Amino acid sequence: MSHPRWLRNIRPYGAPAEDLLIENGRFTQRRQASSAPLAATDIDGQHQLLTAPLVESHVHLDKTLYGQPWRPNSAGPTLKDYISNERRVLREVQAPIAERAGALLENCIARGSLTLRCHVDIDPEFGLRHVEAMQQLRERYRDLIDLQLVVFPQTGLISRPGTAGLMREAMALGVENVGGLDPCGIDNDPIAQLDFVFKLASEFQRGVDIHLHDKGELGLWQIARIVDYTERFGLHNRVMISHAYCLGMLPWSQVRPVAERLAALGISLMSSAPADCAVPPFLALREAGVNVCLGSDGIRDAWSPMGNGDMLERAMLLAFRFDLAKDEELAAAFDAASLNGARALGVEHGFDIGRPADFLLMPVETLGEAVVARPPREVYRGGELIASGGRLLGSRL
Amino acid sequence: MSHPRWLRNIRPYGAPAEDLLIENGRFTQRRQASSAPLAATDIDGQHQLLTAPLVESHVHLDKTLYGQPWRPNSAGPTLKDYISNERRVLREVQAPIAERAGALLENCIARGSLTLRCHVDIDPEFGLRHVEAMQQLRERYRDLIDLQLVVFPQTGLISRPGTAGLMREAMALGVENVGGLDPCGIDNDPIAQLDFVFKLASEFQRGVDIHLHDKGELGLWQIARIVDYTERFGLHNRVMISHAYCLGMLPWSQVRPVAERLAALGISLMSSAPADCAVPPFLALREAGVNVCLGSDGIRDAWSPMGNGDMLERAMLLAFRFDLAKDEELAAAFDAASLNGARALGVEHGFDIGRPADFLLMPVETLGEAVVARPPREVYRGGELIASGGRLLGSRL
Repeated sequence: MSHPRWLRNIRPYGAPAEDLLIENGRFTQRRQASSAPLAATDIDGQHQLLTAPLVESHVHLDKTLYGQPWRPNSAGPTLKDYISNERRVLREVQAPIAERAGALLENCIARGSLTLRCHVDIDPEFGLRHVEAMQQLRERYRDLIDLQLVVFPQTGLISRPGTAGLMREAMALGVENVGGLDPCGIDNDPIAQLDFVFKLASEFQRGVDIHLHDKGELGLWQIARIVDYTERFGLHNRVMISHAYCLGMLPWSQVRPVAERLAALGISLMSSAPADCAVPPFLALREAGVNVCLGSDGIRDAWSPMGNGDMLERAMLLAFRFDLAKDEELAAAFDAASLNGARALGVEHGFDIGRPADFLLMPVETLGEAVVARPPREVYRGGELIASGGRLLGSRL
Repeated sequence: MSHPRWLRNIRPYGAPAEDLLIENGRFTQRRQASSAPLAATDIDGQHQLLTAPLVESHVHLDKTLYGQPWRPNSAGPTLKDYISNERRVLREVQAPIAERAGALLENCIARGSLTLRCHVDIDPEFGLRHVEAMQQLRERYRDLIDLQLVVFPQTGLISRPGTAGLMREAMALGVENVGGLDPCGIDNDPIAQLDFVFKLASEFQRGVDIHLHDKGELGLWQIARIVDYTERFGLHNRVMISHAYCLGMLPWSQVRPVAERLAALGISLMSSAPADCAVPPFLALREAGVNVCLGSDGIRDAWSPMGNGDMLERAMLLAFRFDLAKDEELAAAFDAASLNGARALGVEHGFDIGRPADFLLMPVETLGEAVVARPPREVYRGGELIASGGRLLGSRL
């Protein structure tokens, strides 16, 4: 039981100043800002912007080279080259996965993400090694961040014998989500992949998250099938489609009927808001009621050296991608990096009385300014300051 | 005359450690890194990356609201709405142009840009007021940054009576470049605009910089005409085309012949590397010998609240735009934000003996890591530290 303390003079999402009482790590009262002098135990919010934490909805912690010496990208030109190069790089790197993934996870926390979904490779060659490492990582940081896993068949599922069994084993170990990728483009047997993925998720009562890179009409057809399966298996609000570039390549008249079904079934879309290819039309999808959230995807790995795990920067990149300028639009970009991620991941979010006192403080006026300026932020977990100025207060590496 | 001092243990562009002697603000010797103990007057480079400064090749200092309280964008949906909204906003803002533009200029310096090209609006309504303010700004910061001006007919040239005379007056005041915009799309009389612009530039022996937003075939045709005029007036290496989205909208087979002429005449292209529209194909143009540089365009103004004046971030955005991953490609993105800008603006660049000791120090391994990580940098001008950790040491506001 920790001492009750007031968080004073904060502006929730830019609203007029309020005070929030924190007891035992949770919000227990909310009032208009009091003019009483600050007590020694109070947190002085200094009229900063208060927001819920950021949510990293899609990252590959197991592949990262974060915190390691700079390593020029050495992959050949084809997808096959990239996959074999990754194998070679991860074999050569001396640092264990716990150190690399831990360094990136600490950085994500320091930048304000307190919920994170990590895709974890399984493969008949190295089995469940990455899954086990990520589960250990989750335990080590359980008090700081909610880490949710997706078992991810990077090298194929139906087309790669031995993978299906490993996915089932991962479920038995407690992984929260069944992953898939390009049921057409990678597996060449879309119905077999979707059958397996949805049956497994249904059997274990878990979520589904499918990487869908397939383009244009081929992609859209698969989205319609994922919608069918979600409906048939009753997995409302538990399915995510990641990337879904195809939705940005086709006319809205063709996308809209599918978008309406996505909204009705609570199927979320995840985008990293890339600038080099089509992306789902954010504002139109939002208008149609589809929950679009943001993720970093790979960060400093053998695929690309880019990325830094800052979800506020990711919100800026989304705004940059669609030339968002109005405050209301910039706030929507912020939500994509925060609230929408929480929705997609099925976790609670916000400042309701009784909620854990997880929050960010930023020295800016509005969510719009937060997205544009990406200021250093103070990160609180259960009412305790855990990071400031981009640094976690007490590394566990 | 300042005391000679050695800059010790720096890695120029990632090369093995060297020492550079600075005398009277200039480089006068270069040697392999010495193992001798540091003298009191030495600058300890600590094996950091040494680069030439960044170059901001296109910014509108006169329109910025930088350093002012956050102001939500209030423009209506059309281009006309944006132009009238800007007029209104700039009338309402209390802070004088010197304060707003100065705040942004100081920020650009603090982030490592020591050469900057500023487009300055003229208009029959407010005459040369912005030009005069920018000339005063240039004087005030002359010891810190090389500020180059372009007189910019934002509301039209041929189509806006009174503008041509103001442009001539601006030249007489010493503005370095004649600006233009969309000879087709804005003026509806391309040959009349180009005739005026090139004759004026030729008469005063100045450069040319034309905003070209016109798309597709219409844009490409105008680029071909700008090439014709450059050739006819002998303005080799003194012409820039800004934006040039059209080059990213057409097949390379159609673009290449024009690109080869751009390269032959030393006509540069400026891009802000936007993510929401087509951009000139950076790697193909580079391969064809075309000098492509980077600029921020508007920063926190009535058009858009986005931007922060960090040219290293702009290099990242270029890399992000084209999914650059190899070190050689990331170094090309760095060059676009540095060397290529210097080439386009006709200024000296680099560490040759006799050059002013203007440079950046960054705690990273390579140019690639600099682009990805965008670390805080130490900024030196004439051998003196003028900015560190993103802050100018001694504001003049």
